[in-house]
Amino acid sequence: MMLEGIYHKCGFNDCYCLNENELKINLHTNKSVKKAVLMCDDPYSKGISGQNWTGNPVQMHLSRSLSLENIFSVIVQPEYKRLQYYFVIYFDNDTSVCLLEDGIHQISFVNRCELAKHYFKFGWMNESDICIPPKWVENTVWYQIFPDRFCRVDDGYKANFVDWNDVGCIDYKSMYGGNIKGIDSKLEYLSSLGITGIYFNPIFKSSTNHKYNTDDYLTVDPAFGSNEDFANLVKRAHSLGIKVMIDAVFNHTSRDFFAFKDVLKNGQSSEYYNWYYINSPEFAKSGNTKDGRYYSFAFVSDMPKLNTNNKAVVDYFTDVCKKWISMFEIDGIRFDVGNEISHSFIKHLNLELKDVKPDIFLLGEIWTDSSSYLAGDEYDSVMNYPFMFSLDTFFKDKSLCTKDFVHQINYCYSLYKDQTNRVIFNQLDSHDVGRIITRAGSYDSFIQQMAILMTMPGSPCIYYGTEFALDGQNDPYNRKPMPWKYLDCSEHQSVFNQIKALIAVRKLDCFKSEQPFDFVNMDTQRLIHYTRGTEQKGSVYINDSDRDVEIYENSDSKIVFSHKYSDSKLKKGGVLVIVN
Amino acid sequence: MMLEGIYHKCGFNDCYCLNENELKINLHTNKSVKKAVLMCDDPYSKGISGQNWTGNPVQMHLSRSLSLENIFSVIVQPEYKRLQYYFVIYFDNDTSVCLLEDGIHQISFVNRCELAKHYFKFGWMNESDICIPPKWVENTVWYQIFPDRFCRVDDGYKANFVDWNDVGCIDYKSMYGGNIKGIDSKLEYLSSLGITGIYFNPIFKSSTNHKYNTDDYLTVDPAFGSNEDFANLVKRAHSLGIKVMIDAVFNHTSRDFFAFKDVLKNGQSSEYYNWYYINSPEFAKSGNTKDGRYYSFAFVSDMPKLNTNNKAVVDYFTDVCKKWISMFEIDGIRFDVGNEISHSFIKHLNLELKDVKPDIFLLGEIWTDSSSYLAGDEYDSVMNYPFMFSLDTFFKDKSLCTKDFVHQINYCYSLYKDQTNRVIFNQLDSHDVGRIITRAGSYDSFIQQMAILMTMPGSPCIYYGTEFALDGQNDPYNRKPMPWKYLDCSEHQSVFNQIKALIAVRKLDCFKSEQPFDFVNMDTQRLIHYTRGTEQKGSVYINDSDRDVEIYENSDSKIVFSHKYSDSKLKKGGVLVIVN
Repeated sequence: MMLEGIYHKCGFNDCYCLNENELKINLHTNKSVKKAVLMCDDPYSKGISGQNWTGNPVQMHLSRSLSLENIFSVIVQPEYKRLQYYFVIYFDNDTSVCLLEDGIHQISFVNRCELAKHYFKFGWMNESDICIPPKWVENTVWYQIFPDRFCRVDDGYKANFVDWNDVGCIDYKSMYGGNIKGIDSKLEYLSSLGITGIYFNPIFKSSTNHKYNTDDYLTVDPAFGSNEDFANLVKRAHSLGIKVMIDAVFNHTSRDFFAFKDVLKNGQSSEYYNWYYINSPEFAKSGNTKDGRYYSFAFVSDMPKLNTNNKAVVDYFTDVCKKWISMFEIDGIRFDVGNEISHSFIKHLNLELKDVKPDIFLLGEIWTDSSSYLAGDEYDSVMNYPFMFSLDTFFKDKSLCTKDFVHQINYCYSLYKDQTNRVIFNQLDSHDVGRIITRAGSYDSFIQQMAILMTMPGSPCIYYGTEFALDGQNDPYNRKPMPWKYLDCSEHQSVFNQIKALIAVRKLDCFKSEQPFDFVNMDTQRLIHYTRGTEQKGSVYINDSDRDVEIYENSDSKIVFSHKYSDSKLKKGGVLVIVN
Repeated sequence: MMLEGIYHKCGFNDCYCLNENELKINLHTNKSVKKAVLMCDDPYSKGISGQNWTGNPVQMHLSRSLSLENIFSVIVQPEYKRLQYYFVIYFDNDTSVCLLEDGIHQISFVNRCELAKHYFKFGWMNESDICIPPKWVENTVWYQIFPDRFCRVDDGYKANFVDWNDVGCIDYKSMYGGNIKGIDSKLEYLSSLGITGIYFNPIFKSSTNHKYNTDDYLTVDPAFGSNEDFANLVKRAHSLGIKVMIDAVFNHTSRDFFAFKDVLKNGQSSEYYNWYYINSPEFAKSGNTKDGRYYSFAFVSDMPKLNTNNKAVVDYFTDVCKKWISMFEIDGIRFDVGNEISHSFIKHLNLELKDVKPDIFLLGEIWTDSSSYLAGDEYDSVMNYPFMFSLDTFFKDKSLCTKDFVHQINYCYSLYKDQTNRVIFNQLDSHDVGRIITRAGSYDSFIQQMAILMTMPGSPCIYYGTEFALDGQNDPYNRKPMPWKYLDCSEHQSVFNQIKALIAVRKLDCFKSEQPFDFVNMDTQRLIHYTRGTEQKGSVYINDSDRDVEIYENSDSKIVFSHKYSDSKLKKGGVLVIVN
């Protein structure tokens, strides 16, 4: 009987409201635990003193299996919105113990009425505390556009742009002249691909091609077009059923932002001095900020860090967001470096913006476990880099086996609340990492990872060009201009058609975000098989083993996607998606 | 090599700011782990991509030992306010593994530069997110007064009170006529005992003796006195160095509160209908509310539950608190049924009240692990019932041994952040449980528990009368009028002097809240020995074993409290507190 690794913390992601009526409870155990029962009831069911309280048993089910951990779960509907509880835990040899807040006890302990018990208690299912991300995000298929590189239509703006098809000398500073009119011209293209949301890298006035050092948060960069152009683009996107999310860079500004310029001019007497973290009088100096003269993003001197603990900063940028909503009618905001800006700022933003537009989507750029930002009153979701990392490592490290994959995916989906997992922003590449085809190393591995992206819960995002398997290492090579000129060839069209087919798969009932997933058959090395859905059932097979595998469809099943599958044989590198 | 039970979650209580410069990190392991090293550095120390990042080793120390768990801790000072990290964990056989966010890895894994690593990351040490409870609470010694029962001075108010010294027929409805003038007359008494804070059970207009069904939140109950009387009392208390905390009953009102009266009169058309949770038109009926016609506290019909998700309710009661601060200059507010009112309400209150009075103390009445209310933007502290339960069970269940006690205490102090533990509201009894002398069952056990209360971190509270070991089972017997008439006898005075001596011990440098505690010598059954302090050192011995124990003071040590100690022998039932 191993007692280590058995734990539960009331609140957070282990005991929380799914909605006004349902409470979800998770229990973490070691792998020797075979069964768990929740003993629960209203805390006052036996009177106000709580003496003689006993819970009623509710069976839990094994919901996720990790390498060293079983997670048992149950959903209950407390009649009076309160719940007192503890757990009874059964081991494979049929012995059992109880888990209370202070740890493991023998079952006889809870029957000793003279002793005080540390029962768990969920106080009240308050509706204002329930985490409710916008419903529309659950089944949105996103497309990420880096505006300087997606599409250029001459709008009269003159500048010394690099020739669109000259990618040989691309560097950190290249400007290719992609613009809003160009994007506008491709909206029907995106719609035909199946895209229902666009995430734009920054569009506001800035000296660089990436525009993450913002000079002016309320003016679209003239190289991209005008504010009116962008407002029109959003209207057109909406008319095609496409939502729009823009990038908010509130962790830092450029040095040309009015507030930093004022600091440069007036020093300590500037009213904006405390908008930043300035630690030495030498702040005017440019170059790497490791000397600490002021704090900046990643020691980049042209990205001086804003103090988001300062109420004036909070108010200014809250107002910026409100203006974006009223000027452009955007649907979502992605917060750059979302883990460095203050919780208090994000909480304030959440209150203020949801008040103005209840279904606005607030997405944090956080690369790690973001639980502390996802209680429900900060971000709605985060960019799911743990998911990307998990796939990346599994497909690169051939010594890992199916069970390692299961561990990684179950780990990713055990981090957050169920409602958050349904809107988690899954992507396999972005402007910040090497492109997926390059990291995957082969087309088979690329299409296998894309198939997983499109058949797992969450809101998937395709980085522009990935629908053609556009390649490229890290910045600047992951930001090449979209090679429209070369995309008509049959090779590119075949990739495009596969991605389009996978997006269509994503829209089937059984692959919708709210549908559960279950791993099955973990015995063949590096053959992955999971199912989705309750009524309609989807089955996904990914063969990354070292041999072909026989998979027989049954008579009422339908193949909705396949790669390297024929004659009931899924070849090495293949993908098969079946729906029953 | 046991890998189960090794975990860490970034944020919350495992990675948090102690102040603007210091980050505290806790790692949970099983007992076979003998050493842990934090590998950490700024995430951008090796460039913006994070590739080739390696952490620098920082030794962690074993900070708490529970039955099944070792907690290793370290405090670091990140130069640039950010920290990326992972852990290297050593077992007793000298093998080692790494812990990353996605679980356990071999050490070789972090050296494989082609693979993505799920490092932990603390984004930024934002000052507005730091949990900072009011400093003054750390070393406050509280005294809880149940106003109807503490002291009566005739102030002219006429009512049919029970005779003060007639406790034979005390029941749930008895009114004894204790009042503010009476309390006022005893302020010097409390000051001489060493009290520096008074927590008042409700003082506002209400039909019951306990006044937890409030009729009017802005008028002191006339049986207690006037608003002016209370304002004067607070002034006098302040002049004696005594802080004042009052009881806020915002989970529910009485049925005679204006809003519920309006609902009773106007039904669904009342503008206050949604201030409550009314589920059926039969809400006018009295008697137990298990039929769910409206939600109430513990099914008590005269305590209809307020909907603290309703903005109008939130605004009304926020205003009430602000008026209390301006009318009475109170220092603290204790929130009744603090786990049933909404987080969003408490967060709003915290923002609004700390803005008006930055060092106001917000105390939640929560009986269980309250982590989810103690992030720093809700309550400052909670009533520490887990601590009371832990002592209660240890002293009642003689089959438990010293190590069980160590587990329970370390469990209690592992729940929250260090700064919260320093203001945690420790009490051994209250109006809601049997009195400590009665539950303890003997004077020895009483004084041993009181000694622990006064020598452990946190802000201790004495329930009125406990300084004389006043007895009583649960309500109504734990609320007897203070027997002033009988307290002059030597027996009572000897108890009083012991408690007064323990309060004086609490004020020694080494017993201040910020001082660490360490258990030593856990081998003798039910002999408890712990030390406190860094410069001045305190040693506490509690002998609940079945035999006398020899304890030798050394030449530069001083006995500051003893019970049943003489000739270097600590008798069964004894307490010894030594300071070096």
